[in-house]
Amino acid sequence: MQEIKSTLKVVKIGGKLIENEQMLSEFITDFVNLKGPKILIHGGGNLATEIASKLGYETKMFEGRRITDENSMKVITMVYGGLLNKQIVAKLQEKKCNAIGLCGADGMSIVSEKRPVKEIDFGFVGDIVEINEGFISGLLKQGLVPVFSAISCSKSGELFNTNADSVASEIATAMRNYDTELFYCFEKKGVLENINSEDSVIRELDHKKYQDLKEKGIIRDGMLPKLHNCFEALKKGVKNIYLGDSSLLKSGDVSTKITV
Amino acid sequence: MQEIKSTLKVVKIGGKLIENEQMLSEFITDFVNLKGPKILIHGGGNLATEIASKLGYETKMFEGRRITDENSMKVITMVYGGLLNKQIVAKLQEKKCNAIGLCGADGMSIVSEKRPVKEIDFGFVGDIVEINEGFISGLLKQGLVPVFSAISCSKSGELFNTNADSVASEIATAMRNYDTELFYCFEKKGVLENINSEDSVIRELDHKKYQDLKEKGIIRDGMLPKLHNCFEALKKGVKNIYLGDSSLLKSGDVSTKITV
Repeated sequence: MQEIKSTLKVVKIGGKLIENEQMLSEFITDFVNLKGPKILIHGGGNLATEIASKLGYETKMFEGRRITDENSMKVITMVYGGLLNKQIVAKLQEKKCNAIGLCGADGMSIVSEKRPVKEIDFGFVGDIVEINEGFISGLLKQGLVPVFSAISCSKSGELFNTNADSVASEIATAMRNYDTELFYCFEKKGVLENINSEDSVIRELDHKKYQDLKEKGIIRDGMLPKLHNCFEALKKGVKNIYLGDSSLLKSGDVSTKITV
Repeated sequence: MQEIKSTLKVVKIGGKLIENEQMLSEFITDFVNLKGPKILIHGGGNLATEIASKLGYETKMFEGRRITDENSMKVITMVYGGLLNKQIVAKLQEKKCNAIGLCGADGMSIVSEKRPVKEIDFGFVGDIVEINEGFISGLLKQGLVPVFSAISCSKSGELFNTNADSVASEIATAMRNYDTELFYCFEKKGVLENINSEDSVIRELDHKKYQDLKEKGIIRDGMLPKLHNCFEALKKGVKNIYLGDSSLLKSGDVSTKITV
């Protein structure tokens, strides 16, 4: 006899959505209305870069990718782990959603290793090696709604900047006692066939179509690692994956569904 | 038959101790070695003022007391709720102490109300009205060590700056299913009879002696609200209260014990 699992919704919100007060407020309402156990993972947006610049810290880049030096990591811990995380938690509490704000060091929930140095040292950037599923389950059983910033922690107690999409997919994959659904919320209605038209949302994207659109250069840039994460998560047992704006949390709305 | 309760240690560390890397490191070791369930509350120190100044925010004062405007509250949330809190958690995790960093919005653990405006509006400053004892007990039962920054949350989801000594005594008082012991760790060996001599630690301070030393002006300034908190906590059932530097966590060391 198959055990009936309850459904866990893992929702990730991106930086641009967080920076727009109106969008964030709509998202909070939609997220609060989601039934059942749920987890939120948030990215950061440009606030950390702004604060770093005001503090006189230079943001170092290599081929368009940020290098996280010691000062950058401090700012990320302040801005994402502190300000944004606690502001989101407070907004959820205002609407009686019993949130708890966390980073990967808390309960050693997101364990990572420093990204190996090859042609370049990305600094305080960690790749996830383990999710503490028992700890997160314990919080869910207390009726809490975990809200994660994308900061992980090494076994030797170093805080590392980590890709928020990866945090979401790794958490969704690790929560084996639930049927997990993964929602990537950002400022678009879904994956677009024509980047200039919000009407061109691809409603269903399987791996074959993804490969095809990738080869044609229609899916590119930041969408590539995001979708790669999605297909990996599907393979590892995540039940359903959707991409779109926060209205996708209301069933029936336009979004992109990822299928095998 | 009297129920046997287990002992819970509630430890508060002050700002100056946090700012001194050597002192903080010694404290972390002593705290990790404490047996049984424990909770840490940390103050902030001057880092928030420094960061605020670098960001171009003016620190407003009234008769030596800080006014927490919106920008100050953002900096406090970044620096105390984010940077310091997560750095302490990571240091504890490094030593295999399973810490979880929290502010009062998390699990609505520390509920406050905005301080009433009388001659002056202190801004985003909250006085504690409730501690969510069930939530904190739930974490302790999971074997976690809660680490609180001194930020509370109103029922309508506003984050408020809150006195860290009060957070410590209110939490110690609220945890009724435990025999609680309260430790205030700071940069001195205890309450001093002669402020210039570390050898003048008052080993035991009862309410009568406190009144006496207060009248003589020997106990004054910041020590007054701290000790007032202590005597209130004793009245409300906290079992033992000690003040001193972090070596007081090692039994037998010099410190001030507060008695009725």
